[in-house]
Amino acid sequence: MNTSRGLFRVTIFGESHGSYVGVTVDCPPGIPVDMEEMQSVLSLRSPGKSGITSARNEEDIPEIISGVFNGFTTGRPVTIVIKNRDAHSKDYDILKEIPRPGHVDYAAHVKYSGFEDYRGGGSFSGRLTAPLVAAGYIASKYLELRGITAVSFVSSLGDILEKIPSEWFINPNIEDIRKKTYSRSVRSPFDSYIKMQKLVEKVRDEGNSIGGTITTIIDGISPGMGEPFFSSLESELSSMLFSIPGIKGVEFGTGFEGVHMKGSDFNDAYNVSNDAFRTLSNNNGGVAGGISTGMPVIFRCAVRPTSSISKVQETVNYSGEKVEFSLKGRHDPCILIRAVPVIEYSASIVIADMYMRMMANA
Amino acid sequence: MNTSRGLFRVTIFGESHGSYVGVTVDCPPGIPVDMEEMQSVLSLRSPGKSGITSARNEEDIPEIISGVFNGFTTGRPVTIVIKNRDAHSKDYDILKEIPRPGHVDYAAHVKYSGFEDYRGGGSFSGRLTAPLVAAGYIASKYLELRGITAVSFVSSLGDILEKIPSEWFINPNIEDIRKKTYSRSVRSPFDSYIKMQKLVEKVRDEGNSIGGTITTIIDGISPGMGEPFFSSLESELSSMLFSIPGIKGVEFGTGFEGVHMKGSDFNDAYNVSNDAFRTLSNNNGGVAGGISTGMPVIFRCAVRPTSSISKVQETVNYSGEKVEFSLKGRHDPCILIRAVPVIEYSASIVIADMYMRMMANA
Amino acid sequence: MNTSRGLFRVTIFGESHGSYVGVTVDCPPGIPVDMEEMQSVLSLRSPGKSGITSARNEEDIPEIISGVFNGFTTGRPVTIVIKNRDAHSKDYDILKEIPRPGHVDYAAHVKYSGFEDYRGGGSFSGRLTAPLVAAGYIASKYLELRGITAVSFVSSLGDILEKIPSEWFINPNIEDIRKKTYSRSVRSPFDSYIKMQKLVEKVRDEGNSIGGTITTIIDGISPGMGEPFFSSLESELSSMLFSIPGIKGVEFGTGFEGVHMKGSDFNDAYNVSNDAFRTLSNNNGGVAGGISTGMPVIFRCAVRPTSSISKVQETVNYSGEKVEFSLKGRHDPCILIRAVPVIEYSASIVIADMYMRMMANA
Amino acid sequence: MNTSRGLFRVTIFGESHGSYVGVTVDCPPGIPVDMEEMQSVLSLRSPGKSGITSARNEEDIPEIISGVFNGFTTGRPVTIVIKNRDAHSKDYDILKEIPRPGHVDYAAHVKYSGFEDYRGGGSFSGRLTAPLVAAGYIASKYLELRGITAVSFVSSLGDILEKIPSEWFINPNIEDIRKKTYSRSVRSPFDSYIKMQKLVEKVRDEGNSIGGTITTIIDGISPGMGEPFFSSLESELSSMLFSIPGIKGVEFGTGFEGVHMKGSDFNDAYNVSNDAFRTLSNNNGGVAGGISTGMPVIFRCAVRPTSSISKVQETVNYSGEKVEFSLKGRHDPCILIRAVPVIEYSASIVIADMYMRMMANA
Repeated sequence: MNTSRGLFRVTIFGESHGSYVGVTVDCPPGIPVDMEEMQSVLSLRSPGKSGITSARNEEDIPEIISGVFNGFTTGRPVTIVIKNRDAHSKDYDILKEIPRPGHVDYAAHVKYSGFEDYRGGGSFSGRLTAPLVAAGYIASKYLELRGITAVSFVSSLGDILEKIPSEWFINPNIEDIRKKTYSRSVRSPFDSYIKMQKLVEKVRDEGNSIGGTITTIIDGISPGMGEPFFSSLESELSSMLFSIPGIKGVEFGTGFEGVHMKGSDFNDAYNVSNDAFRTLSNNNGGVAGGISTGMPVIFRCAVRPTSSISKVQETVNYSGEKVEFSLKGRHDPCILIRAVPVIEYSASIVIADMYMRMMANA
Repeated sequence: MNTSRGLFRVTIFGESHGSYVGVTVDCPPGIPVDMEEMQSVLSLRSPGKSGITSARNEEDIPEIISGVFNGFTTGRPVTIVIKNRDAHSKDYDILKEIPRPGHVDYAAHVKYSGFEDYRGGGSFSGRLTAPLVAAGYIASKYLELRGITAVSFVSSLGDILEKIPSEWFINPNIEDIRKKTYSRSVRSPFDSYIKMQKLVEKVRDEGNSIGGTITTIIDGISPGMGEPFFSSLESELSSMLFSIPGIKGVEFGTGFEGVHMKGSDFNDAYNVSNDAFRTLSNNNGGVAGGISTGMPVIFRCAVRPTSSISKVQETVNYSGEKVEFSLKGRHDPCILIRAVPVIEYSASIVIADMYMRMMANA
Repeated sequence: MNTSRGLFRVTIFGESHGSYVGVTVDCPPGIPVDMEEMQSVLSLRSPGKSGITSARNEEDIPEIISGVFNGFTTGRPVTIVIKNRDAHSKDYDILKEIPRPGHVDYAAHVKYSGFEDYRGGGSFSGRLTAPLVAAGYIASKYLELRGITAVSFVSSLGDILEKIPSEWFINPNIEDIRKKTYSRSVRSPFDSYIKMQKLVEKVRDEGNSIGGTITTIIDGISPGMGEPFFSSLESELSSMLFSIPGIKGVEFGTGFEGVHMKGSDFNDAYNVSNDAFRTLSNNNGGVAGGISTGMPVIFRCAVRPTSSISKVQETVNYSGEKVEFSLKGRHDPCILIRAVPVIEYSASIVIADMYMRMMANA
Repeated sequence: MNTSRGLFRVTIFGESHGSYVGVTVDCPPGIPVDMEEMQSVLSLRSPGKSGITSARNEEDIPEIISGVFNGFTTGRPVTIVIKNRDAHSKDYDILKEIPRPGHVDYAAHVKYSGFEDYRGGGSFSGRLTAPLVAAGYIASKYLELRGITAVSFVSSLGDILEKIPSEWFINPNIEDIRKKTYSRSVRSPFDSYIKMQKLVEKVRDEGNSIGGTITTIIDGISPGMGEPFFSSLESELSSMLFSIPGIKGVEFGTGFEGVHMKGSDFNDAYNVSNDAFRTLSNNNGGVAGGISTGMPVIFRCAVRPTSSISKVQETVNYSGEKVEFSLKGRHDPCILIRAVPVIEYSASIVIADMYMRMMANA
């Protein structure tokens, strides 16, 4: 089940400490693929030199080994591989004895009967999100040609909580938000980004980690994308998003807060503007009854604090003995930052797929 | 795409004002099916005489037309149909002119090129959740034989917010919570249930509606259920849950609140108790890296206030003219209440499916 | 797995001796559905009064319980049920003791651990093909609007073997072949139909059965339908066809005979006729490399003689004792005859699905 | 749709003249993978030095880039790539002007709007079957541990037709047939193998090609594998087989010939032998009602003569002008020979998948 759903779909493979991570993408012919652009998209999630992401130094150079010919997709599967260059497997020897708190190690050990590749989290590693972004780049090019654009950004971090401006629900300037977001190491368009940066540095210095939320806005989707059962736009998006390591919640529109409103306040009333049906508010987040309403699709993901911390934790080893555990290795104090493009580009995969399905039903 | 994913899967059909709603269930042979018990489960979501749910009077009597022989599933598809008895289609004639605010009407009109059955929300109606519950009953019997039990309950409603006791994350008494929940019209095990009941009555009297959240706990899942990409336990559950009308958010464990913690507080450290690996906390909600940890699986859904309200709303008709809109018909002031068993039983379908897939990999 | 693949897809349910057989169809909105026409299509496979099909007297009246509104599909699932009126379950009591030779009884008994509905073959019954034809009728209407038409007919029966005229490979008159085929009880457009009719009567009188082959021609498919791996047009068609009870072989174009040719004779050379690329021969049967070439798609199915015969057979009972076995009940001496519309209409389901997928990739 | 169906499944990628061909395999943990053994299996389909296969000199060295750790599958996706070393792209420049007779070129050109990689047949190339065999090797190891073995062999070639001994339907010696088959360049266990070899040499010298049939026997499958609708054992096998380039027909048991028998002759009567239910004949080919009977599964595939021949053919170019066409390049005079292991190992993928599904339903 390493293949996502639908028609525009991806099959992912690789382990943190294997030779390559990669992805195979099923997609239509004629999508332009520019390797420099793909590289620059990949670099958005790479551990940089900002000091607030992992020190693991991966250049993440994508190689295409099938499905692109003369700069365009051929209509046959596109396979992209990315070499793992800087793995320090030794750091992980201890995992043979102690399952990391907050991590999948123990469950994976049971599930795979001890055959799992435990090094660096194996195929559970966030490293698998690199090929996902590469695949999402192709999806984003497909969508760009159809007038659909997306942006993700950090909307809260630790105790720094930002409220999304109501204008962004109705008529977002995707380009502008993107520019701000990706110009900052902490991937947030809000003025609090300096505070956020400092918070990450602080938890990093403590050998600790911190989580928060990422908001995504997708503009340009016409009404009617999705199926009420069992392929609602929310179903398909959340299904993809909850495959990204560390995501613990997904909400659409005003989400958990909004549902506590009364119906008369929550309902998005229609208006006609420039001959188009629009809603005055967008509490539904661009999806009603599981299908797109024509308003911007907006959702928020909760991303947990990184499990791997160097701070000492009390836990037990596989023999059941109490131990003090401190993980060496190079970890992100805040995976949120690198999850921003991962969410943006993996959402693009879903939207491209839903677009194709919509065409099939026309 | 009216078929859910995997091996234990359901295909749903019907419209609010058609002759039947129904479901076909793919499932293993030998699951006991007791029609009285199925009926009593269905009655959990039926509009009752409590005064706080819709006045639409549907008895929801399930008929099995295939796949059950001598009281057990045969291994071939089980089809269950439920007759629609009390539809008042006339109430909905206005929908030909005015798309309801907050509803899917407009988007469906575009999507289906005007061929949609608009009466009572057609196949977007909450009425489709009746067969989903009937299918979930079969899943719950399958799981019961494997020691897995589940409960859902209202955990917040309007401004009444309840905190889940930490014991319920670690060692829940499912039976006890279920008993309390379903003995109360408002489907909440908390002492605030009387306040909740009064709040629903108040918004009902105003011709308005209110939303809130539902928490679900599933106990007895062994470690290793789910696949990191793209069939994480969270992916599969959320995919199903976001098909249920009105759900706008899904979070696991401590969810959106929890992620703002530091990693050292969030990480669930291991302990060995009665020779079993358990975690001392369960902020992860029983899922790490997309697979079950062996701890209770716990998640919370945000359910929006009912869109259909009789209170007057300002909106536009299909010609783009401003109108005052007030919907006749019999609506729930709070769909949350009836969504409780829908979430519980549809989650059971997913868990039964994931269980089968786990067996396949053994 | 009672759901076929892709986008235009069907979920089948029911047993020979249950209350209903039926099908749920996922399909686009706006397909015209005429109940009288559906009925007349269904009657093509019904046991008639010709004396050469089963005496089981089923009128096969389809009822639509969802997905059709004002004479058109709504875009939501169409469910069709057909009541079982004339089942004689008593005839099958012996199956509790003796698995029928040539039948699935024994394997089903092992597979379903004794929970199977053994009466009349349960859900293995040819009766399940009635809803398949009803679903195929909808597919055929979808295809008709897109200029695609199909016909199936008996091309051999026992020792009566007919050669398909080469013109039918290149430029078939579907309408004419259909007219001839369905005007004859034995469903063959060839002049040997009277000999075929007599052969069926002869084996019927012996309490025996006979098999043969059915050829199908589908015209109007443009080049490019199908995917080389793993959704070739042949893969998708054969996958559906081999679900029809009694089919033991599927071949495309000149099939098993043709492959023994030399390449220079087999290769279909191109020609330009009326500005269209056509091939002068069609040994490939309209499919090369797994995708349609634009020529008529032509394939032949081998259909085994009916397993259920009243002639005495030597076999063993479940206790392993030798017994003489003769099955009462009302059986077709030649299921081939009734399989003709089943193949034609189930192939339409596949082509409709492949058409939708082709649109998605455009 | 480059992913096969079910649970044990493969995603294929690559083009004839790209840098790599490869495959990703979803499979359970703990399957032993021996790279030398995989290499020797791959060499069964490689163009050898026998003079009767293509002169393209590919060593086909598989590299595993994920999913195998310490010699066993981890339970996560296994990706295998094989470098293309000896492609002569120049040979194919003419394909920009002339679509090859009998080939997919023209249809692919229409389907992919001119974006296809036409060199060497692109992703339609038989070269894609190399990774399929590598994946099938893993499936065969999975099956070996469960007592299931398979063999494929040439059963007819041109006008040399062999009849399968009836013993092979009932109680085949797989090991012995395999040994004979793979010890001969022409991959046939029959004494006529020398005649076959000479026939291939003759058509090779003529610049022509020849086709024939391949029979496969799979032993050790217990009763109950498969689902009547729409995952019959025949459906699943044929779906895979018809993805292999050049396969034009698939028949089970006595196939097209057998169906012309009377039912009393065709029906496989039961016998009890060593406390096991066996049938005395196996006309059904080990499958009845779509599920395995416990007898050997036996099927035959028709494989067309190679399309690419150097003999001059009359056809038209893309401008519609008549041309004489003769293809340079290095082609197999008889792809049948190399298709033998491809069929054997790709069938193993299907059986491994069906085995997993059977376990899920237990």
